[in-house]
Amino acid sequence: MSRRWLLIPVLLSLAGIALGMVWVDWSKGGAGSGLYSREWQPDPVQGYWDPDRFYQPVVSVEGVFPAAECITCHEALTPGIVADWRDSRHSKPANRAPVACPDCHGADHQKLRMPTPKVCAECHAVQHDAFQSEKQYGFPSHVLAMERATDSKHFADKPKAETTACVQCHSVATKCDSCHTRHRFEAAEARRAEACTTCHSGPPHPDDETFYGSAHGKRYLADAATTDWSKPLRKGNYLTPTCAYCHMRNGQHVVADKSIWQFGLRQVNPNTAENKVKRERWIEVCTDCHDEDFSRRQLNELDRERTQAWHGLNRTERLLRELRSERAIYPAAGERPPYPTDWMDAWFPKERIGFFEGQASSFYNVSPIERDYFEMWYFANLGAYKASAHGAPALVKEGHEALAHAEKSIATQAGNLRAKARGPRPDPRPLWTEGEYTAHNRKHN
Amino acid sequence: MSRRWLLIPVLLSLAGIALGMVWVDWSKGGAGSGLYSREWQPDPVQGYWDPDRFYQPVVSVEGVFPAAECITCHEALTPGIVADWRDSRHSKPANRAPVACPDCHGADHQKLRMPTPKVCAECHAVQHDAFQSEKQYGFPSHVLAMERATDSKHFADKPKAETTACVQCHSVATKCDSCHTRHRFEAAEARRAEACTTCHSGPPHPDDETFYGSAHGKRYLADAATTDWSKPLRKGNYLTPTCAYCHMRNGQHVVADKSIWQFGLRQVNPNTAENKVKRERWIEVCTDCHDEDFSRRQLNELDRERTQAWHGLNRTERLLRELRSERAIYPAAGERPPYPTDWMDAWFPKERIGFFEGQASSFYNVSPIERDYFEMWYFANLGAYKASAHGAPALVKEGHEALAHAEKSIATQAGNLRAKARGPRPDPRPLWTEGEYTAHNRKHN
Amino acid sequence: MSRRWLLIPVLLSLAGIALGMVWVDWSKGGAGSGLYSREWQPDPVQGYWDPDRFYQPVVSVEGVFPAAECITCHEALTPGIVADWRDSRHSKPANRAPVACPDCHGADHQKLRMPTPKVCAECHAVQHDAFQSEKQYGFPSHVLAMERATDSKHFADKPKAETTACVQCHSVATKCDSCHTRHRFEAAEARRAEACTTCHSGPPHPDDETFYGSAHGKRYLADAATTDWSKPLRKGNYLTPTCAYCHMRNGQHVVADKSIWQFGLRQVNPNTAENKVKRERWIEVCTDCHDEDFSRRQLNELDRERTQAWHGLNRTERLLRELRSERAIYPAAGERPPYPTDWMDAWFPKERIGFFEGQASSFYNVSPIERDYFEMWYFANLGAYKASAHGAPALVKEGHEALAHAEKSIATQAGNLRAKARGPRPDPRPLWTEGEYTAHNRKHN
Repeated sequence: MSRRWLLIPVLLSLAGIALGMVWVDWSKGGAGSGLYSREWQPDPVQGYWDPDRFYQPVVSVEGVFPAAECITCHEALTPGIVADWRDSRHSKPANRAPVACPDCHGADHQKLRMPTPKVCAECHAVQHDAFQSEKQYGFPSHVLAMERATDSKHFADKPKAETTACVQCHSVATKCDSCHTRHRFEAAEARRAEACTTCHSGPPHPDDETFYGSAHGKRYLADAATTDWSKPLRKGNYLTPTCAYCHMRNGQHVVADKSIWQFGLRQVNPNTAENKVKRERWIEVCTDCHDEDFSRRQLNELDRERTQAWHGLNRTERLLRELRSERAIYPAAGERPPYPTDWMDAWFPKERIGFFEGQASSFYNVSPIERDYFEMWYFANLGAYKASAHGAPALVKEGHEALAHAEKSIATQAGNLRAKARGPRPDPRPLWTEGEYTAHNRKHN
Repeated sequence: MSRRWLLIPVLLSLAGIALGMVWVDWSKGGAGSGLYSREWQPDPVQGYWDPDRFYQPVVSVEGVFPAAECITCHEALTPGIVADWRDSRHSKPANRAPVACPDCHGADHQKLRMPTPKVCAECHAVQHDAFQSEKQYGFPSHVLAMERATDSKHFADKPKAETTACVQCHSVATKCDSCHTRHRFEAAEARRAEACTTCHSGPPHPDDETFYGSAHGKRYLADAATTDWSKPLRKGNYLTPTCAYCHMRNGQHVVADKSIWQFGLRQVNPNTAENKVKRERWIEVCTDCHDEDFSRRQLNELDRERTQAWHGLNRTERLLRELRSERAIYPAAGERPPYPTDWMDAWFPKERIGFFEGQASSFYNVSPIERDYFEMWYFANLGAYKASAHGAPALVKEGHEALAHAEKSIATQAGNLRAKARGPRPDPRPLWTEGEYTAHNRKHN
Repeated sequence: MSRRWLLIPVLLSLAGIALGMVWVDWSKGGAGSGLYSREWQPDPVQGYWDPDRFYQPVVSVEGVFPAAECITCHEALTPGIVADWRDSRHSKPANRAPVACPDCHGADHQKLRMPTPKVCAECHAVQHDAFQSEKQYGFPSHVLAMERATDSKHFADKPKAETTACVQCHSVATKCDSCHTRHRFEAAEARRAEACTTCHSGPPHPDDETFYGSAHGKRYLADAATTDWSKPLRKGNYLTPTCAYCHMRNGQHVVADKSIWQFGLRQVNPNTAENKVKRERWIEVCTDCHDEDFSRRQLNELDRERTQAWHGLNRTERLLRELRSERAIYPAAGERPPYPTDWMDAWFPKERIGFFEGQASSFYNVSPIERDYFEMWYFANLGAYKASAHGAPALVKEGHEALAHAEKSIATQAGNLRAKARGPRPDPRPLWTEGEYTAHNRKHN
């Protein structure tokens, strides 16, 4: 065979890569952001969550102002933020002139900017670099929070009110005042548990509930008012652990460097070489107060809890796969509206089961039993995981009861679906899986 | 036609009005209170929730006592309240003699009274007048809380333990110590979030959960212990907002003057002339700390969230109406026990759907799918609304997930009901919709 | 009949008793503890929850050390606990040498012990004796918490992660640092509400939720930071009640001496002679702040709430009994795998309904409708009870709504089961009630 023929696949591949890049570029060119940016519209508030992409300054005030004039005017207009700033170190740094309004927002009122992490990095490069370094751990991580959220297909399918809520918290990647409230920006504030729990709460990440459900959290509740939060997060400085004390060792702006179980979403091998390194990082933290033997047994206990949870999840996923092979899941994938940008799925519909078979839209637009399995995997499972990781015994019990409840309920439904698979069946589609529900979300996202 | 004939409808109308007044008067003459007072009995504790109607003094202690003697005796008997009073401004006012026990309770121990708002108004007329002025905004409002609760049919049908719990919180209209705990009655206490959240919590009004789920709430948790709560609720006095700071501008005893979305229970037009005035009142509050553009975008975001929630609610209500017209709801209204005082319904039973078709007893004594719709409308919907209004992103997500979950579940049930409408069906009535459940509640309320 | 024949039953009984004792002894000889100790394995962390039975010291450090050397080393290794100890009264008692590491843990590092209540009793005999005296009130009580937990059959059947969580809290019986966090052991800490709520929270004992949902809890939240917790728990010393203030009158280490409604799990007669004595103990506490009439009405209101809840529970249990007699519960007891140690049940399977017909394994491994009834009885019912007892109106409503929701759902299922009882039925067994679910738990517990 001549060399000429070898060139064909090479050229085709190169063309494919080029076309793929054009395709991704085109996908990202919509009104929203991410790979599905053409499938959704940002709400106006998004200018504040992701200022780099979406912020548009107000043009009704004209002029270029020095800090003193900003303050005079805003002291009358919005006294709260001025008072906050006066309380902050920004207003009275040790070795330099105050960091005032124009330093972060610019001076031209018609071109005001909302500060992005890059703006903060002009002074706080160490923290910013550490924050960026989280990319090496992949996702879940703070630095990739916005990117990975907006790269999800479900931005087209989920109710808009939900995706907007998603983006508000995932904006931890695109601005710094998620943790340091404006315009006080105190480190002391971010060391406290409250700094994290606006976002880290609720079924998909019940850190609030499970930290406060632990002995650590209870001691925090009792001690916080009399603790000196101005001290750095170093070994021995605090007798009551907080989110930052354990997850941001020495105040380092990295939280993913000890993440073994990947937020509870994946079944992992906790004993890989990488996870063994992470485990030793945990032991280093725990032994600030607990002996090493106790700490290791607790971490092992978490592995045991995870093994049990995943047994149940895998068992249930297997059941759903069986139902699929028996054609008992109804409506099946081919009977559901294809995902708008997913051409392969439109042509060759595949009844995907669970989240990791690859259908992000398993959130919505699926048969009821699939949605129930999704909630079991996401909400019940994460409740159990976080409770075990944070040491909240009543919530470990609650999480595993929720897993058992879901398993019972899915098994019952499976029985009914199998019985119905042999006769005429009621059709749950018209409202939930297609027609109005999905149509409405797709039209309005 | 002679003038004589015109008199007949006029006279009939007048007679009808007179008879209506007699009927209402008779209705209100029962052991309970409100339009259905003949359908329920007040529990003894109600004397403390609605003292004007129900309080009966203890007659075992005889005598007329001056304050000093009350204190001597109660210091030994109930030292807590005496200590509270000693801490209060009542015990040491600036320009007058102390406000002591007999001033509020009377001096004759056999004729003691529990103070009503009118008693407090003897000194605090400004606050009382403002409180009464809420009537202009209709319900929901604090001043009408008790009246509208006891005018509801479901006082006959709901489990008694629930209606008693309802009345305990709705007593905010009939006594002042709901917000100012006895016998300290501090303004400083009522300015804090804790003053409101004993009642404003739980599925029907999750203000507690959603405030604490917001960045406002988190900052409150972190700052409350070091904040000076003795300052008036004026612009610039507080850097952390609380319920009262935003909803009772300048300490004014009116909360309904900014209420646009009516507690989330009704679909409203947020852009009526009246609501535009209310919106500007909000902007005035928000701009204490936030810029106007940000504030307007946030309020618009709430409108967007509401529009989405109501799309789902209306879609589901339409589905229920379809089921009704297909005779698929089971048991239908005619198969349910008529509401005791509703003669029209007893003679011409109508299968009402949802809350606003007029059946307050949609809470109970309805088919399972109707009750599920009620819970979707009341609990899931209010969770989403309050979370959006208070800025709690994780709970916006949770609320809309609960709405979606309810929609999925109702759609599935609807499919089953339609299938069953063609064949013999299991009868869910014996326990839940009639027979023992309803009979027991009606007998014991 | 000769006397000889009378001897036979006596001897048989004696032999039976002896055999029973041998049987119990053998049962308790397994790897776990309690009557079913041969059915489960303790996780390694259990050494810390129940040190007397399971703690194994670490043998990698050799030597016998005086306190000063312990401290030198652990100041570097685990500075947190050393700092805690330095803060504690143990490090600087008034009239004796410090209570240091070897006093509680022993001095030989290869034979270290984790302190049991008996170790603490060497100095704190009064508290320990009071704690032990709770045995007279039976269970629920702190002192019997571990014993009664591990004597339950469901240690074989419940998911291991749950039983481990159970044991963590039930370890209140087997160590003292459940309430007094190590190594500070302050009375001041245990007087606060946070000391109790790590365990007293969640569906099976929602004391956390319901205390904080009450006016008492709200006042605690507002006042805790400015309260002097070093004062003894005596009448008049505290204006804001906490768990310990009401349940451990005068700091007495007994909480069961006022327990009338038995944690809400049983329907009791609140007016037995014993309960009347307990009621007067409550009145004594309540009247620290409330008048006697108010206090009695509140306690009666709780009785009324309980009566209503039990009406619903009994009504639902009756329905399940009817289903059983109609052979409509599926799978029936004979179709379920017998409990491993229950020989009688294996030979003569009995379809037990509810918890008190005697089947501890009603938690799992039962038909779906039975599990739903279990959750109604345990979770919805306890939510209602605790809310009423603690005075949390929104949660009384929520609890009774949950009871009503469960009743509706069970009634609907009952209708379906009755319809299905006449035809071929889907089989919910393979996953939930036998096969993998139960098999997995039994194998891994």
